[in-house]
Amino acid sequence: MKVVAMIDSFKGCATSEELNQAVLAGLPDEIWTEKCTIPIADGGEGTMAAIYAELGGTWQSVTTQDPLGKPITGQYLLSRFEGQEIAVIESAVFIGIHLVEVSDTVIRQTSSYGLGKVIQDALAHRVTQIYLTLGGSATSDGGLGLLQSLGAIIEGSEEGNPLININNVDLKGLQGELNNVELVALADVTNPYLGKKGFAEIFAPQKGASKNTVSEMEQQAQLVAKKIKQQTNLDLATISGSGAAGGLGGAVIVLGGKIAPGFVTLQKIIRLEEKLQKADLIFTGEGKMDGQTDQGKVPFGVAQLAKKAGIPVIGLCGSRTRDIGKMTEVTLGVFSIQQGPISLKEAMEKERTLTNIQQLASELSHVFMYKKK
Amino acid sequence: MKVVAMIDSFKGCATSEELNQAVLAGLPDEIWTEKCTIPIADGGEGTMAAIYAELGGTWQSVTTQDPLGKPITGQYLLSRFEGQEIAVIESAVFIGIHLVEVSDTVIRQTSSYGLGKVIQDALAHRVTQIYLTLGGSATSDGGLGLLQSLGAIIEGSEEGNPLININNVDLKGLQGELNNVELVALADVTNPYLGKKGFAEIFAPQKGASKNTVSEMEQQAQLVAKKIKQQTNLDLATISGSGAAGGLGGAVIVLGGKIAPGFVTLQKIIRLEEKLQKADLIFTGEGKMDGQTDQGKVPFGVAQLAKKAGIPVIGLCGSRTRDIGKMTEVTLGVFSIQQGPISLKEAMEKERTLTNIQQLASELSHVFMYKKK
Repeated sequence: MKVVAMIDSFKGCATSEELNQAVLAGLPDEIWTEKCTIPIADGGEGTMAAIYAELGGTWQSVTTQDPLGKPITGQYLLSRFEGQEIAVIESAVFIGIHLVEVSDTVIRQTSSYGLGKVIQDALAHRVTQIYLTLGGSATSDGGLGLLQSLGAIIEGSEEGNPLININNVDLKGLQGELNNVELVALADVTNPYLGKKGFAEIFAPQKGASKNTVSEMEQQAQLVAKKIKQQTNLDLATISGSGAAGGLGGAVIVLGGKIAPGFVTLQKIIRLEEKLQKADLIFTGEGKMDGQTDQGKVPFGVAQLAKKAGIPVIGLCGSRTRDIGKMTEVTLGVFSIQQGPISLKEAMEKERTLTNIQQLASELSHVFMYKKK
Repeated sequence: MKVVAMIDSFKGCATSEELNQAVLAGLPDEIWTEKCTIPIADGGEGTMAAIYAELGGTWQSVTTQDPLGKPITGQYLLSRFEGQEIAVIESAVFIGIHLVEVSDTVIRQTSSYGLGKVIQDALAHRVTQIYLTLGGSATSDGGLGLLQSLGAIIEGSEEGNPLININNVDLKGLQGELNNVELVALADVTNPYLGKKGFAEIFAPQKGASKNTVSEMEQQAQLVAKKIKQQTNLDLATISGSGAAGGLGGAVIVLGGKIAPGFVTLQKIIRLEEKLQKADLIFTGEGKMDGQTDQGKVPFGVAQLAKKAGIPVIGLCGSRTRDIGKMTEVTLGVFSIQQGPISLKEAMEKERTLTNIQQLASELSHVFMYKKK
């Protein structure tokens, strides 16, 4: 019998690979003669690790600036895919929300500027494809910081969040190197740059913006979109995903890139569909599973592929809501690893999480394997 | 396919029957064509309901006094078993710990006196067997309150906990009616009346007694045991279970009764072994499952009977410890109904508990029923 574990990281607690290994360790070897771990991600945190597990590559260190302009050193992945040199960059490593203390003051200061140096470093390594994950960013600068660091001129703004004081953006200076590179941004949101579903209205409040800051940002974003349209004929107001990551999606569009759904893109790169063939059981999961899980998250993506292949799926999570949308249709069940009432803080201890998930998988395997008359 | 639900009450949250019904409601009718609920108990709370579900009978109301001497009205069960008229009395209904606020002052005041009137009421109904559950009592009076209310004279003590000031107990006045009645006390503890495992040392602290009160109680209990030995030749120091329920077990012995293990006694009365035959799956459980669960608790008793009959068992609980002793050997798995981090208070909400257990049973049924190649 073959079992495959591909559980998304429990954010802030355990990585995909750690969780996979714990689950597999819980399963009796005499029954599960073939145990496979596939590190997985939804196109956010863990994407580099998932691709590295499949393609290998080298980890490249870069020192750039974090969302508040302080020096930060982080890694991205250089690898090879379908004959091309590629880079995989997780934005959050350099401009992630975990790097700042969220507040209205802070969101008015943060910039995606530091990301430009990472992309330039990848270009210097002559890659022809860059995968850039957008999830988990601290910024709401309309992607202006990134554009600025790649040669655009932001008029009216000297420091901090360039969106706040900008009165013009001049794209003429943008570097030409990106013209020869395929830039693919991974994002699971389809929000446009402007309006009620735009980055200011939807994402800025999650990053600390006050009501006033939100309307100020929206007004400035309107101006930026207008200037961009004048120079490129691109209308960010109508482009799906251009509002991702505080407008970083818009910058990707301006740079000639495209926005692609995270899990779908990743699963193709790591040949997931091929790998799960002939499995008798698949464990998948995520820290939190709810009504949004069927919107491009790992467990739903995995379960859909499995269903197509006729393989049963069991979901494991730290917490779930009663209603988990269409996840119910594509899994045997979704189980929380908690063993009783517990605080969020204790529940997020890595050791406890790994021991609990191992025990749960073990007992579920007994239930699954019991031979009925 | 036949499924049987027999889950012990989640104390302070939901009854056995409520939990059974919720579990069965979660199971698809097209697969589980025969669904049985068996209300169950460990010989404490829920014992009357479990016996009523099997034998029927009439509920009898009695007004007596609670542990602090205030009027209390409660019910016991009159029924018929193997040709005999029986009464089933749950001590905790009348002298339960839920009726008082636990403290050192309170434990020095509480008496089992009120229980006598309930027994007398049963005697008046010409029963020939009385089942008396001992669990959950508020008292630590060496059973003197009960003896007193049935005719014994407690010298030196006028009110409150008779153990505290007693200097002699005279058993001559005990009513003769009990001579013709089989008194069976259900208890899962084997503690004797005195010493390191006696009621004062072990149970009094759980009921609020300070260290001083404990040693005072132990000293008094020594005196009482001596007086009882002089008059009856019974040595409570060596009789297993005489220390149950603050020494109430000792009073039962003095009254000519016996102490019997709760679950074992109950399962015979309700013909559990017979009823679970031909089941394809059994759900059992308890609010809290831990290393003590294999010591006479419902889930272990049920699982042992099921194992003997070759029927798989799934355990469900509010919370579990990682180590659940021998429970692991007799179940496919034991699963907590919690869906994520949650406070004890919220977890104990009845509606949430019933909805969670229903959903968990439903998903476990899918895992159990999945047909392997």
